[in-house]
Amino acid sequence: MAISVTVWTECGPDDAEIAAVYPEGMHNAIAGALAPHGELRVRTATMDEEEHGLGGTALDETDVLFWWGHQRHGEVDDGVVARVQARVLGGMGLVALHSSAESKVFRALTGTSGRISGWRHGDREVVWTVDVTHPVAAGVPRPMVIGEQEMYAEPFDVPAPDELVFVSSFAGGEVFRSGMAWRRGLGRVFYFSPGHEGYPVYRREDVRTVLANAAFWAAGPAGPAGPAEPVRGPVPWTSRPRERGWYER
Amino acid sequence: MAISVTVWTECGPDDAEIAAVYPEGMHNAIAGALAPHGELRVRTATMDEEEHGLGGTALDETDVLFWWGHQRHGEVDDGVVARVQARVLGGMGLVALHSSAESKVFRALTGTSGRISGWRHGDREVVWTVDVTHPVAAGVPRPMVIGEQEMYAEPFDVPAPDELVFVSSFAGGEVFRSGMAWRRGLGRVFYFSPGHEGYPVYRREDVRTVLANAAFWAAGPAGPAGPAEPVRGPVPWTSRPRERGWYER
Amino acid sequence: MAISVTVWTECGPDDAEIAAVYPEGMHNAIAGALAPHGELRVRTATMDEEEHGLGGTALDETDVLFWWGHQRHGEVDDGVVARVQARVLGGMGLVALHSSAESKVFRALTGTSGRISGWRHGDREVVWTVDVTHPVAAGVPRPMVIGEQEMYAEPFDVPAPDELVFVSSFAGGEVFRSGMAWRRGLGRVFYFSPGHEGYPVYRREDVRTVLANAAFWAAGPAGPAGPAEPVRGPVPWTSRPRERGWYER
Amino acid sequence: MAISVTVWTECGPDDAEIAAVYPEGMHNAIAGALAPHGELRVRTATMDEEEHGLGGTALDETDVLFWWGHQRHGEVDDGVVARVQARVLGGMGLVALHSSAESKVFRALTGTSGRISGWRHGDREVVWTVDVTHPVAAGVPRPMVIGEQEMYAEPFDVPAPDELVFVSSFAGGEVFRSGMAWRRGLGRVFYFSPGHEGYPVYRREDVRTVLANAAFWAAGPAGPAGPAEPVRGPVPWTSRPRERGWYER
Repeated sequence: MAISVTVWTECGPDDAEIAAVYPEGMHNAIAGALAPHGELRVRTATMDEEEHGLGGTALDETDVLFWWGHQRHGEVDDGVVARVQARVLGGMGLVALHSSAESKVFRALTGTSGRISGWRHGDREVVWTVDVTHPVAAGVPRPMVIGEQEMYAEPFDVPAPDELVFVSSFAGGEVFRSGMAWRRGLGRVFYFSPGHEGYPVYRREDVRTVLANAAFWAAGPAGPAGPAEPVRGPVPWTSRPRERGWYER
Repeated sequence: MAISVTVWTECGPDDAEIAAVYPEGMHNAIAGALAPHGELRVRTATMDEEEHGLGGTALDETDVLFWWGHQRHGEVDDGVVARVQARVLGGMGLVALHSSAESKVFRALTGTSGRISGWRHGDREVVWTVDVTHPVAAGVPRPMVIGEQEMYAEPFDVPAPDELVFVSSFAGGEVFRSGMAWRRGLGRVFYFSPGHEGYPVYRREDVRTVLANAAFWAAGPAGPAGPAEPVRGPVPWTSRPRERGWYER
Repeated sequence: MAISVTVWTECGPDDAEIAAVYPEGMHNAIAGALAPHGELRVRTATMDEEEHGLGGTALDETDVLFWWGHQRHGEVDDGVVARVQARVLGGMGLVALHSSAESKVFRALTGTSGRISGWRHGDREVVWTVDVTHPVAAGVPRPMVIGEQEMYAEPFDVPAPDELVFVSSFAGGEVFRSGMAWRRGLGRVFYFSPGHEGYPVYRREDVRTVLANAAFWAAGPAGPAGPAEPVRGPVPWTSRPRERGWYER
Repeated sequence: MAISVTVWTECGPDDAEIAAVYPEGMHNAIAGALAPHGELRVRTATMDEEEHGLGGTALDETDVLFWWGHQRHGEVDDGVVARVQARVLGGMGLVALHSSAESKVFRALTGTSGRISGWRHGDREVVWTVDVTHPVAAGVPRPMVIGEQEMYAEPFDVPAPDELVFVSSFAGGEVFRSGMAWRRGLGRVFYFSPGHEGYPVYRREDVRTVLANAAFWAAGPAGPAGPAEPVRGPVPWTSRPRERGWYER
């Protein structure tokens, strides 16, 4: 079963700071982590395209949306945010990366600010798996040691996750819940914190495994795992009046 | 310790349909359930007041906000919604009643549509406590039998609750998660479904107990229950750069 | 990928009461619901066999264990209970049916009594899906209407589930959390309440779909859903002393 | 409202290793953290007393039981374990400290092994609050820096907690979920990991605040926080047959 993935970033093609680390562009770096998996059909979209590259049928044709933003959250169009949220409630997966905890789409889906309590550049991050059975942790080294990253500190203003997968420590002694999962409507949301643009984190094999796992997980439990198809289609909670017991229709 | 409660409804003073059941107004009916409790200082606010009665320092001075809306969700000002959400993240409690699952404030805080899957008027609702130790269920009959109410049907598009307190059945055989709790930021959110305006549900002693319990619970764990004051004050997750380990400051 | 399922019941081959409904035996009725699925390799085991049919390598070779008990919980050998629990912590799935909420194995894995608050025979049960995206609810009618069943009433003494899938109502107005999931160690536990021996519940197509879904779900997220194998093998939490940082070994 | 606390440890009065750090005995050190709070009536009990000091009416008269064990888990009598578990299901709080994650009572209540994945002596532990609104975190420095402690490493084989309160990091880069809460039956369970016997951790003011907070929290939501008494008394889930609808009795 093919899964259609759209990788969205706020970065334009000539962002000098990012180009120093990712000359191919941040969106292409993330897409490159997914491309080796044949079941994933990957395209990209960026802020400066029309409707941020998410207009027309783009969202309807997306099974999983990756979101990476950092400096330009405020520029994202509210209409696009509303459509992304509606698509997640309708079944699309969302993988929010790094600073995207403060993005409009993540805030809309969690109801919280996504704020962290401190940060520091150039820190060593050690990512531990606390839920070793979670599909997003499959094949991931325990721990992953990322030599240089941006530190994020707790408390982190997000809802208690439905599933806590990764917890990180930093050289300064801080901790951070670095991998968390939530269900929203018919869709799934995963947050993964490593990935500041100043460090080549998305080139690491272990991080790429997490990204690919997250794509498969966020697509939902479809396919050969069960004997029957899960509900993926039309949103079932269309309100309408009922004259008799619901189950008697 | 006094708790400041604001009861908000969308109803104007001359809403004929509501006046048939609650001649004193829906907001006063709900406020009347809380007034007998000396620690609760109760005021009301309604849609048609300036800034919906929630301008100036009204929200800052509110510890717990009750919200009741049904037909006029779309008329609520987005700026007021944003300020309510910010106050909840900053520590205010929210008690959302009945159709308020589809209100803008509840949707903003949960990230979901709040949609139900069916309804029917004039049904018998039986409300069961599934978490008998929850403070909101204290002193509540098990079950509460509400002779006439509006039926709400699952699936109900909300996040999995942090605490599931009540589950209802209806004469038609439907079920509904009728009492649920979530944490958001420093604040608490409680949803309680009984309360259609066409039936005098908020006059019942058992329902009034739930409303008062919810007010105390949503105010947070302050006060004599513990030896130290919980953090209620300034939001701790103000982002700022750190040069050294956070704990070394 | 083949999944090895063992269906265990307390019933002997000549249990007259059960034979009236399930002449082939309760264990064979449940096994018959799973047999049509080619990936499931199904065997049975019963109380009166040596070591309850779970000795030798039986448990080690089982990926998912179905458990059905009602009247004879006390006769189950504590050593067998300990081995079942250890296997679940090591990755085996457990599907506990009906009265098995009070079985020793379910109690050992949940830490609670599994007690219900009331029961009544010959009641109509309506089973509603509250989590429509859950794999165990895939292809299941919403709702399932079971004309005759035993009523079970809340409160139900179990831990708050990691995932709440089904909620039932009964003709008497009661409600019951009839489908719940928990994670324990490397394994998964699912509880499904329909299935009193006096009614041919396990002959229904919709219930058989739930049983098969539960088998696939409890086996874990292995296989083609992700790009890498989840951890299923040796239990990773073997305690041992470390002289240096764990990640530096 | 007075709360009766029993502090239990495995330590005898002449345990030389412990006496080097806690000449008054481990049990008295923990009790000493609680004694300053007038509402807490504190007594102690130890392994080597008859019935481990928990016979007769001792458990019935206990609202909150602290449990500290390390080397002698296997010596705890299974009958005492069963009675402790039954009391928690009936409403008693349990605060399990340090190595007590592997104690029989904690294992019985969680269904898991309580095993950690590594340890190391003499490490610096930094304890972060991730749920700043939790009563057990009230008044606790963020973070607490414990200069010397025993490192515990994830993964930690416990059920996903109902509430995650503290997460620790260690000098070696490890992380550990050091403060977690679960509900079981009518009772509450809190686990707090700092407290190896070789370091005077329980003499620290910040740790003593956690211990006292945990005592108040584990006692349940009784008292002045709400307008009505929560259910604390006889266990409500006594199974018995019902001829009519439960709510019609």
